[in-house]
Amino acid sequence: MIGGGPEAFIGEVHRKAIALDGKAQLVAGCFSRQHDKTLEMGARLYLEEDRLYRSYEEMAKEEAKREDGIDFVVIVTPNYAHYGACKAFLNEGIAVSCDKPLCVTIEEAYELRALAKAKKLQFLVTHTYSGNVTAMQIRAMIAAGEIGEIRTVMGEYPQGWLANEDIEGNKQGAWRTNPELSGATNCLGDIGTHIENTVYRMTGLKIKRVLAKMDVVVPSRTLDDNATVLVEYENGASGVYWSSQIAIGHDNGLRVRIYGSKGSILWFQEESEKLRLVKEDGTLVEIHRGHAAIKEEVAKYERLPSGHAEGLLEAMANLYSNFIDCLHAQAEGTFTQDMIVYPTIEDGVDGVEYIAACIKSSENGNVWVDMN
Amino acid sequence: MIGGGPEAFIGEVHRKAIALDGKAQLVAGCFSRQHDKTLEMGARLYLEEDRLYRSYEEMAKEEAKREDGIDFVVIVTPNYAHYGACKAFLNEGIAVSCDKPLCVTIEEAYELRALAKAKKLQFLVTHTYSGNVTAMQIRAMIAAGEIGEIRTVMGEYPQGWLANEDIEGNKQGAWRTNPELSGATNCLGDIGTHIENTVYRMTGLKIKRVLAKMDVVVPSRTLDDNATVLVEYENGASGVYWSSQIAIGHDNGLRVRIYGSKGSILWFQEESEKLRLVKEDGTLVEIHRGHAAIKEEVAKYERLPSGHAEGLLEAMANLYSNFIDCLHAQAEGTFTQDMIVYPTIEDGVDGVEYIAACIKSSENGNVWVDMN
Amino acid sequence: MIGGGPEAFIGEVHRKAIALDGKAQLVAGCFSRQHDKTLEMGARLYLEEDRLYRSYEEMAKEEAKREDGIDFVVIVTPNYAHYGACKAFLNEGIAVSCDKPLCVTIEEAYELRALAKAKKLQFLVTHTYSGNVTAMQIRAMIAAGEIGEIRTVMGEYPQGWLANEDIEGNKQGAWRTNPELSGATNCLGDIGTHIENTVYRMTGLKIKRVLAKMDVVVPSRTLDDNATVLVEYENGASGVYWSSQIAIGHDNGLRVRIYGSKGSILWFQEESEKLRLVKEDGTLVEIHRGHAAIKEEVAKYERLPSGHAEGLLEAMANLYSNFIDCLHAQAEGTFTQDMIVYPTIEDGVDGVEYIAACIKSSENGNVWVDMN
Amino acid sequence: MIGGGPEAFIGEVHRKAIALDGKAQLVAGCFSRQHDKTLEMGARLYLEEDRLYRSYEEMAKEEAKREDGIDFVVIVTPNYAHYGACKAFLNEGIAVSCDKPLCVTIEEAYELRALAKAKKLQFLVTHTYSGNVTAMQIRAMIAAGEIGEIRTVMGEYPQGWLANEDIEGNKQGAWRTNPELSGATNCLGDIGTHIENTVYRMTGLKIKRVLAKMDVVVPSRTLDDNATVLVEYENGASGVYWSSQIAIGHDNGLRVRIYGSKGSILWFQEESEKLRLVKEDGTLVEIHRGHAAIKEEVAKYERLPSGHAEGLLEAMANLYSNFIDCLHAQAEGTFTQDMIVYPTIEDGVDGVEYIAACIKSSENGNVWVDMN
Repeated sequence: MIGGGPEAFIGEVHRKAIALDGKAQLVAGCFSRQHDKTLEMGARLYLEEDRLYRSYEEMAKEEAKREDGIDFVVIVTPNYAHYGACKAFLNEGIAVSCDKPLCVTIEEAYELRALAKAKKLQFLVTHTYSGNVTAMQIRAMIAAGEIGEIRTVMGEYPQGWLANEDIEGNKQGAWRTNPELSGATNCLGDIGTHIENTVYRMTGLKIKRVLAKMDVVVPSRTLDDNATVLVEYENGASGVYWSSQIAIGHDNGLRVRIYGSKGSILWFQEESEKLRLVKEDGTLVEIHRGHAAIKEEVAKYERLPSGHAEGLLEAMANLYSNFIDCLHAQAEGTFTQDMIVYPTIEDGVDGVEYIAACIKSSENGNVWVDMN
Repeated sequence: MIGGGPEAFIGEVHRKAIALDGKAQLVAGCFSRQHDKTLEMGARLYLEEDRLYRSYEEMAKEEAKREDGIDFVVIVTPNYAHYGACKAFLNEGIAVSCDKPLCVTIEEAYELRALAKAKKLQFLVTHTYSGNVTAMQIRAMIAAGEIGEIRTVMGEYPQGWLANEDIEGNKQGAWRTNPELSGATNCLGDIGTHIENTVYRMTGLKIKRVLAKMDVVVPSRTLDDNATVLVEYENGASGVYWSSQIAIGHDNGLRVRIYGSKGSILWFQEESEKLRLVKEDGTLVEIHRGHAAIKEEVAKYERLPSGHAEGLLEAMANLYSNFIDCLHAQAEGTFTQDMIVYPTIEDGVDGVEYIAACIKSSENGNVWVDMN
Repeated sequence: MIGGGPEAFIGEVHRKAIALDGKAQLVAGCFSRQHDKTLEMGARLYLEEDRLYRSYEEMAKEEAKREDGIDFVVIVTPNYAHYGACKAFLNEGIAVSCDKPLCVTIEEAYELRALAKAKKLQFLVTHTYSGNVTAMQIRAMIAAGEIGEIRTVMGEYPQGWLANEDIEGNKQGAWRTNPELSGATNCLGDIGTHIENTVYRMTGLKIKRVLAKMDVVVPSRTLDDNATVLVEYENGASGVYWSSQIAIGHDNGLRVRIYGSKGSILWFQEESEKLRLVKEDGTLVEIHRGHAAIKEEVAKYERLPSGHAEGLLEAMANLYSNFIDCLHAQAEGTFTQDMIVYPTIEDGVDGVEYIAACIKSSENGNVWVDMN
Repeated sequence: MIGGGPEAFIGEVHRKAIALDGKAQLVAGCFSRQHDKTLEMGARLYLEEDRLYRSYEEMAKEEAKREDGIDFVVIVTPNYAHYGACKAFLNEGIAVSCDKPLCVTIEEAYELRALAKAKKLQFLVTHTYSGNVTAMQIRAMIAAGEIGEIRTVMGEYPQGWLANEDIEGNKQGAWRTNPELSGATNCLGDIGTHIENTVYRMTGLKIKRVLAKMDVVVPSRTLDDNATVLVEYENGASGVYWSSQIAIGHDNGLRVRIYGSKGSILWFQEESEKLRLVKEDGTLVEIHRGHAAIKEEVAKYERLPSGHAEGLLEAMANLYSNFIDCLHAQAEGTFTQDMIVYPTIEDGVDGVEYIAACIKSSENGNVWVDMN
């Protein structure tokens, strides 16, 4: 694991999610740019000291040399460092799981994609929410035509935790609102891309063009903390994606509403144990995880019966479960592309392109910008 | 009453709302362009036959002549006919209650406003939702600074009833999607303006400019049935207003979420017995109509204790109640402007300007258009 | 109208509900035992002074004499006075609408029932909640066998308004907790009977026996303010009815959940615009008032499209609407029993019997008591 | 681990919950009475074959002998086998985690309690729901007097999964409805005791007496599948506990509503990321896990920020986390009783006494039975 030191949040989430199924074990790491923090974290995790590295370059090289070297690396650093770390491990022939967004520039994204392809390496980008059983179910339902042709999509992801002026000591907020660590966007890059990916995962719709308005609401900031994007898909449907970190009262409110010619599907991440399907005649059906309505290929990702809540860790664990299964299959020579359920580097590239197009639109006075 | 014939919907709503408090009585009408329908409706309502008129012009003249003539007229025709009817009665010195939108063109709107002003006539535009007790409460709370400076507003009004292709015999849908009867917009004019007015009533924020995308989703239509508007207010805050008639699963889903520097307020028309207030520290408080938290000047519009649901009729009745009180006060010479709680012709003019700006923006490729 | 004076609550509800449809007009009243209050109320309602009476006896006699005498009387006094008033009007051949509970003792109930029957007079007991469109829909669905044989029913009616010690000046609370005005029960009689009637209206199940525990929670009271009743129906199914006035946080929380062999129905009075149906396979369907799923015989009681909230007044107005239709039919000689949708004196008698059985059970240490 | 074989449900839940924090590792087991199934399960879990035992007696003895023997055993067999397994390990001086109910008879319960006490062994009874952060928060709030003296409690636990007649092949349902495997109760023992324990954990209220009605609803069964219990606490407050397995539409609907003299607390297991607090003045506050309102001693059990759902596994993991911390402290000689947050054998004994009293009440015609 790269990143995920003592004060980090998402690293611990990855570790617990992986532990859930016992399919992989954490054995090496470079948890921080400060080596003492890496040592502290390593000790806390009962890792052997000789596998606690000073840099990701060192770790990539050393682990590649070992016979019992890691099967894949998990990269959970701030955004700006994703690219270098990904590249180091890909170059050594090690599969990668990288937190989103994949990287900061389109050029980096294309390079990583080419590298992974050339090396034939599996590459998981942890857009966690697509790992929810209900999110997978929606993908399957839409693919099966249950709501007809999609007409409009309302996606939103409001949070309230950055509503106040930035204060010292809020490590999570600090790097996200700092252009040097986060790149040219805060809110859109951090959570807006989750909307983009979740909608894509559910609908399969490719975005044709975007019109973005990125607002800097809280005084003293330079990066966006509220953003609205009008979206036009290749099939002609329209979408609106709103993300915000200044919406007091929202915790982690990713919500997607998809309206088709034959019905609608409504999904809310914070209540991801259920989804709502409205049929053409207006009949409103609530489908709960664990019930017979969940399709067989999705139900195999359930760990608990209905009513026994699964949460974020299970969603992420599902991505890792599929990723590791694919790694095993690849090692055994039985791997085929259709085994992949997890978001790949293609999702990562889409995300970076999406951010770039939005920034361009916003900087030019909220005009339409084609996706590529 | 002008309009509101046997097959109409909103006319009956106005009649029942007025009946609720017994402050006014329906005594004359021209309910349809077809006189036999007016007669039929008049008979059903126990009206005297000599007060059932062939046209609004006739009614305005005849009622103005009578000593016991009407104190105000209620205009509930399709949109295109509002202007003529309003003008006829204003010219005769009769106060007007007109359904929204006020009229079809800005010129008409300005003319009516000037006329009402010149004649010193009260003019109610029935943006019903502002009559909800909770909507009034929100207005009072925001005016009192309870959520600080407003930063962003999310307004939406999805419906699903026009999701299918237009069929014969759907009278409500027919005139709304017919350019000759509705003017240059369907969805935005019919329900989008409710968002605009509800947000204005609650926040007092004036719109500086709009960027609108009006979609014609269902094949064979010429008018919009889905519309998204980016809004910029004079204080610099941003807003997104989405209205749709093709969002299967939604009944009458007007929802307004207002995010300020010190808190947020969330309101949903279909559950208008309550509102949610989130304070700066994230504390989420649900306020129910009928409770002590409702401010005194608002609570006087309550008819029932908490938990005994009030609905749409009560909301509209509240507008009429205030309107009639103002008429009485005017008649008695005690009227002052600050007595007005109901939406006036200014709200009506704003609505027409808003529609015009949105159409201009949408026709020019979704560019920013100043409100003026 | 008998009762419903200046400080009363329920009288005004009846008046507004009746006004909603314009099928009947209030013309006479004895609104209070204090004649000056009756005069005050009468003036406020624009009634003629000679039809404002000093007592219900006087009103019954005088109105019976008039050629334009009332067609029916509305009795909305405190419970203890129902019997006398009902009897006076029935004796004069005048139909009655009486608030629930019908009266205080079983003997009174039987006498009134016999009298109404002998005089062939329509008798409405205003168990308001059965007038909700969704409540009527549930009745129709269960009668059609949509959830199979009923197995268990959970009914509850929590309120919080009497959670604190009784204070001077709370008129509503005062008479309800005073044995001389309310009879031998407060909570169970005031709201517990609404559960009993609502469940009966929906399911048609007759109660075989009850086991009641009536609690006096708030110190200084002598009557129950919290009550739980175990119920056994004639078909062998079981039920639990909980009513409370000390459940802080509840407004008017009548909720009924009915579990059958083929499905379940869930209904909540405060959100009576919808109901939930769960089918045998666990599919959860939400049915909204105004949608096609509402049965034709029920849909005729709808006034507004879905999403335009109807509330308590509409529910009560539906009872009056049907009651008045039945009176007209009787006057015209076309009346048949199956026209009755409203709760009749039979419902009233059942309620009194239910209360009596519960009190007996509770006084004897919470033992089973047959309903008879 | 004893029990938790290939077809079992709860064993896997315990395993994943323990894995979540990495504080303990599964190293030995007797997963089934059929040794081949134990071997199969052991292989699946990468256990060493010499620690896969033919019986719990063998495992207790052998593990006690080993220097690296287990620190505690997890017992997740059907109810009837709990007693024997618990006794075997306690006798060998090994700490126990046992699924609820502790055992089948009161005599067994007392014996186990005495044994654990004599051996000074920690004993966790996995009433999972008390491990929810919000459940812990409620316990802390009530202990702090935030809702005053408790007046009445409504607890319920409806499920729908046994609504249909028992069919072959439903392993979970089969043993639960079989008296030889489950003892004298099905529904009350399986889920009714969760209500009893959850309410006790939250409120600290001791039950004085119970009046139970246990129904056998589905034909062909001999054990209860629906049960209602009237409860009287030692402080005079009343409670109603309803559990059901035939309530179609409910998944795992444990819900507790606690009404006090100064406020109320409402909690629903399926939405355990939040709780509702109503204050004396009716102000309704929603408290989300992850927010500042969560007390410090409770917040340390949070793994994720608000809005990132934690579920059942986290709740159970919290119990194990505290249990293992206590074991460590005991080993280090720093243990004190007040470190215990987990439900102990005392909770287990209470549960068995509760079941016994309810059965006695139900068999004697639903009469009051004292708890001891």
